[in-house]
Amino acid sequence: MPDTITGRRRRGRPRGGGSDARSRILHAAAQEFGEFGYDGATIRSIAAKAGVDTALVHHYFGTKSDLFAAVIDVPLNPAALLPAMLGGELDTAGERIVRTVLEIWENPSFRPRGVAVLRSVIGNRRSASLMVGFVSREILKHLSERIGPGRDADRRAALVASQIVGLVVTRYVLELPALAEASPAEVVSAVGPTIQRYLTGEVGPAE
Amino acid sequence: MPDTITGRRRRGRPRGGGSDARSRILHAAAQEFGEFGYDGATIRSIAAKAGVDTALVHHYFGTKSDLFAAVIDVPLNPAALLPAMLGGELDTAGERIVRTVLEIWENPSFRPRGVAVLRSVIGNRRSASLMVGFVSREILKHLSERIGPGRDADRRAALVASQIVGLVVTRYVLELPALAEASPAEVVSAVGPTIQRYLTGEVGPAE
Repeated sequence: MPDTITGRRRRGRPRGGGSDARSRILHAAAQEFGEFGYDGATIRSIAAKAGVDTALVHHYFGTKSDLFAAVIDVPLNPAALLPAMLGGELDTAGERIVRTVLEIWENPSFRPRGVAVLRSVIGNRRSASLMVGFVSREILKHLSERIGPGRDADRRAALVASQIVGLVVTRYVLELPALAEASPAEVVSAVGPTIQRYLTGEVGPAE
Repeated sequence: MPDTITGRRRRGRPRGGGSDARSRILHAAAQEFGEFGYDGATIRSIAAKAGVDTALVHHYFGTKSDLFAAVIDVPLNPAALLPAMLGGELDTAGERIVRTVLEIWENPSFRPRGVAVLRSVIGNRRSASLMVGFVSREILKHLSERIGPGRDADRRAALVASQIVGLVVTRYVLELPALAEASPAEVVSAVGPTIQRYLTGEVGPAE
């Protein structure tokens, strides 16, 4: 019978379906994007890893970019953590922001997926601009409003992003030993004041 | 006959030269670095793979780090810029390091290749560990020695790397607008003090 909405004939699920096939595909996709980046990942390899037909991957998730969107929807929504980071006094937010970021990334159920997302986002121009749009709208805009008013609020928020992105990339993606091995408390002590200065300190010549 | 540009006497190529020796060496080096990582790769093994003398490898490409830069197709060897960054007083190195990094990345002949390399390095686990080996041995080790002695020199060097990586990724790869649009002078003023604190300031609880 033709589907009344899409006009396509429903033919039932392709081979390999089942109650947990969807989550197996998501898990395999996170692994694949993490290992090969967005460009290098293939639906065929993801289907093989998940033990299903490629048609089932398309059936559940559509295109590769749809699947990628589903994968980055799996980890918690970073925008939901803004209250924890920005709720208190701005004068003490530096260490709080670093501590919250580390709490997210030290979580063993988040970390591998977070790394996969970051590899794909940075490795591919299209997903990078997709993610920059999301982060700008959902995070930096709120951070900037919390800093502002003032013409350099956007730049301060971007400077915060530069150190947070650099911390996450070097500690969790590149795993630079001296940083990967530091305790969360040591990282908070070292990086917190940087974030604090970007939020409320002197950051350059007045324009 | 002396080379009129370099003033060095041309002595002819060592054994094994020829029109395609250079590309054979590059090909062998790419294989060797890919298989054994930066630390494990040797000029001797690369020469053997390419069927040439080790002297010819040095003749064409210089040091191992120069050869690595050639393999990843980056027009300059970052290790060659260490003297500019670390040559003066450590107490004023923060802004100098940021300024040097920006001079490299603002160069229109470097930037697109630098972005391509960074994308592939971060996007792929294997090339990431290769690059971490290179950066650790050729850059961070020297930076750490310049900071040291002291047990936290390696961590200070890694913190510097975290902010530099984050700056380059957000400004040149992700092109976060508020940072991509800032002038180099503004970036130096904002980020220089961060680097300075990581080099010589208070970076956390004493261990």
